[in-house]
Amino acid sequence: MENRLIVALDLTDGSKALSLARSLANYVFAVKVNWPLILGSGSSIISEMSGFVKVICDFKVADIPNTVRLIVEKTRDLGAYATIVHAFPGGDSLETAVQSAGGMKIIGVVAMSHPGASQFVNPRRSDLLDIAKKAGVYGIIAPGNNPDLLGELRAESSGLKIFAPGVGVQGGSPVEAVRAGADYIIVGRSIYESESPVDEARKINDQVSSVSAPQ
Amino acid sequence: MENRLIVALDLTDGSKALSLARSLANYVFAVKVNWPLILGSGSSIISEMSGFVKVICDFKVADIPNTVRLIVEKTRDLGAYATIVHAFPGGDSLETAVQSAGGMKIIGVVAMSHPGASQFVNPRRSDLLDIAKKAGVYGIIAPGNNPDLLGELRAESSGLKIFAPGVGVQGGSPVEAVRAGADYIIVGRSIYESESPVDEARKINDQVSSVSAPQ
Repeated sequence: MENRLIVALDLTDGSKALSLARSLANYVFAVKVNWPLILGSGSSIISEMSGFVKVICDFKVADIPNTVRLIVEKTRDLGAYATIVHAFPGGDSLETAVQSAGGMKIIGVVAMSHPGASQFVNPRRSDLLDIAKKAGVYGIIAPGNNPDLLGELRAESSGLKIFAPGVGVQGGSPVEAVRAGADYIIVGRSIYESESPVDEARKINDQVSSVSAPQ
Repeated sequence: MENRLIVALDLTDGSKALSLARSLANYVFAVKVNWPLILGSGSSIISEMSGFVKVICDFKVADIPNTVRLIVEKTRDLGAYATIVHAFPGGDSLETAVQSAGGMKIIGVVAMSHPGASQFVNPRRSDLLDIAKKAGVYGIIAPGNNPDLLGELRAESSGLKIFAPGVGVQGGSPVEAVRAGADYIIVGRSIYESESPVDEARKINDQVSSVSAPQ
């Protein structure tokens, strides 16, 4: 079975992130990088990591179409596997992302994993999912720490891949997230802050390897 | 009167952006940089430009509080004048931005300037403005190419500074945006793609210098 684990390298130190990515490459589906790392170490870390592991750029792009295009073209050219783009700016921005991505995948944010998401974003998940489906994204972000909401999005997403952050420190359980319908679980601090990130990654892989996702 | 013009340097080429910023520094309130420039040239361009002109990081941050904090702390440490953060992820994310900003200002996005904004974001502007006001932002983004909406936000924003993009190529008029209530107008392509960016900036300054904003 395909590995379901994505490690979020939410660090600003490039050499530490690279070293973690190298040691974890055989135990993960992909690594996820975010803006703090790019601000700290430069965008070339994306192409460097892409040489040995899939890289998901969690840039939560949320801009007008012209800027979305410039960001997506750049991450594509740097060799990223996927880039994460918000649905809420509307269909034109998200469609521009899909059209600019070439062979790279676009993952749309339709719900989020932090407490404040319940205030505005998550109650609008159906509208956001519609925008994402119409734009032709490859997958969506659904909160791994909210299995009910994740399951609902899985049921309504017409086969889009489900990427679930919020597992670990944010409260989500790897097993419950997969059982609810996550194709991939995204784990950050509880792996990269552990004493042995490889052991922690292996442990999570073992936990989810026998879990069946809903049909 | 204070200069009202902000130039958006939506480029990926660092040396071209720096050269433009230097030539325009005396004719603008600030320059605005976005992720494509950081991906193309590295984050040190923020501190380099901040040595001679105010820099607004238009990063449209839209993430969970922990990531928002990491991004805002970094732009603050690089010497940015302000960073732009979305309101829609909710109060906890935007409050974290304000609390992490130190002396740097946080500008909240409560409406946008592209056509797709009418699909989802702009109809929710009142809720988003509430989130921004409660979080204690310094200013808000309001579309310069939609004077009615801009005027409404001005009237309801309790004195927050209004930053208006969408002026120029996106259809907004500098004079109408200021008349509707913009404290600052953000102009990108029609300045940096012109044959003489300085002349273009001067022209816009002349146009708006005698316009009165509503009380």
